[in-house]
Amino acid sequence: MGNDEVVLLDFNLSMFCVRVKIALAEKGVEFENREEDLENTKSELLLEMNPVYKKVPVLIHNGKPISESLIIVEYIDEIWRDRTPLLPTHPYQRAQARFWAHFVDNKVHEVAKRIWTGKKGEHEEDKKELVENLKQLEEALGDMPYFGGHTFGFVDIALIPFYKWFSIYEKIGNFKLNFPKLTSWANRCLVKETVSKFVSDEKDVCDFVLRYRKKIGVD
Amino acid sequence: MGNDEVVLLDFNLSMFCVRVKIALAEKGVEFENREEDLENTKSELLLEMNPVYKKVPVLIHNGKPISESLIIVEYIDEIWRDRTPLLPTHPYQRAQARFWAHFVDNKVHEVAKRIWTGKKGEHEEDKKELVENLKQLEEALGDMPYFGGHTFGFVDIALIPFYKWFSIYEKIGNFKLNFPKLTSWANRCLVKETVSKFVSDEKDVCDFVLRYRKKIGVD
Repeated sequence: MGNDEVVLLDFNLSMFCVRVKIALAEKGVEFENREEDLENTKSELLLEMNPVYKKVPVLIHNGKPISESLIIVEYIDEIWRDRTPLLPTHPYQRAQARFWAHFVDNKVHEVAKRIWTGKKGEHEEDKKELVENLKQLEEALGDMPYFGGHTFGFVDIALIPFYKWFSIYEKIGNFKLNFPKLTSWANRCLVKETVSKFVSDEKDVCDFVLRYRKKIGVD
Repeated sequence: MGNDEVVLLDFNLSMFCVRVKIALAEKGVEFENREEDLENTKSELLLEMNPVYKKVPVLIHNGKPISESLIIVEYIDEIWRDRTPLLPTHPYQRAQARFWAHFVDNKVHEVAKRIWTGKKGEHEEDKKELVENLKQLEEALGDMPYFGGHTFGFVDIALIPFYKWFSIYEKIGNFKLNFPKLTSWANRCLVKETVSKFVSDEKDVCDFVLRYRKKIGVD
């Protein structure tokens, strides 16, 4: 796989793009990064490579595009299967990993997005739901160092990019997220260079969200 | 795998449950079916086995629960990997299959549900979007007999249970879905006993939807 051409259509602040970059780094795959200017115009290449959703991340591997972050991470795991495995081996554990990774999309991202794109004070139910959902994630983690057990893997990759957004959820929602086990887990993940190199800076996330909220007229 | 205990928490009219039953039938796996009375009360077993979403289908394999239909179908494919494969072998084709299967959930089911649970005449945008999305699916199918190419597989399993709902979308939405290639594809799938045995009867779907609409007060 030494002659692979790997291009990522990226947006630096996207949690979904961060997932892909961590997965590539875990596998030691070099890639060319093409930053999309999503706050202005989408590139022709993005529209051509992901005509269905027109969204980043898109991984272009030897000219062929793959979209949707969790699908891309599974693809990376399958293509470079001789290196650091991201999903567990046993089908039951694989199913559990997929379940919690999708939970992050459906029950963390979707709910949190309603808070950070919504009018202040209007999302009390969403705040309660987010707390409840993070509690479920914390229970799923239990006393293990990572979601996959003793090694960093698929669910960790799915969730860690969101951790840097927690403070903006708190700020916009005016509430506290108090999850000591998730905090310890996140700190453990962030020690890894493959993670710390790509997760967004909290200040950049905050500036982006404030700009976005002005743009859509909720602030 | 002869001593496997396979139980499905099922709801006969759920398209998501139909997916799992087709996958089990394709693999020739016998299973015990426990029908949930979702129109009244969820069973204790369902709440215990899927505490997060409290939804069918749940596959209980040797006592261990797996939830979320597409995750279950992948699990079935991985556990009984020596029988009829459901996902393609190559990672790129696997990624494409996952992409279109999730497209069915996000872009067919979600949009169609807004139509069949909504007030008549209030979903013009959703109707346009559903037509657009089915057109994209038809393009993805192209001139192949199945979504996977020449063999029935993952995307076919994901989509075929919805085909029997098309007439109710048309009836509630008062519009026509005209997709000749999808119709030919569906007829090809429905010839298979593993499919025809489990897909819902259109009249049962219609009766259910009319009852449901009365219950939520849109009719």
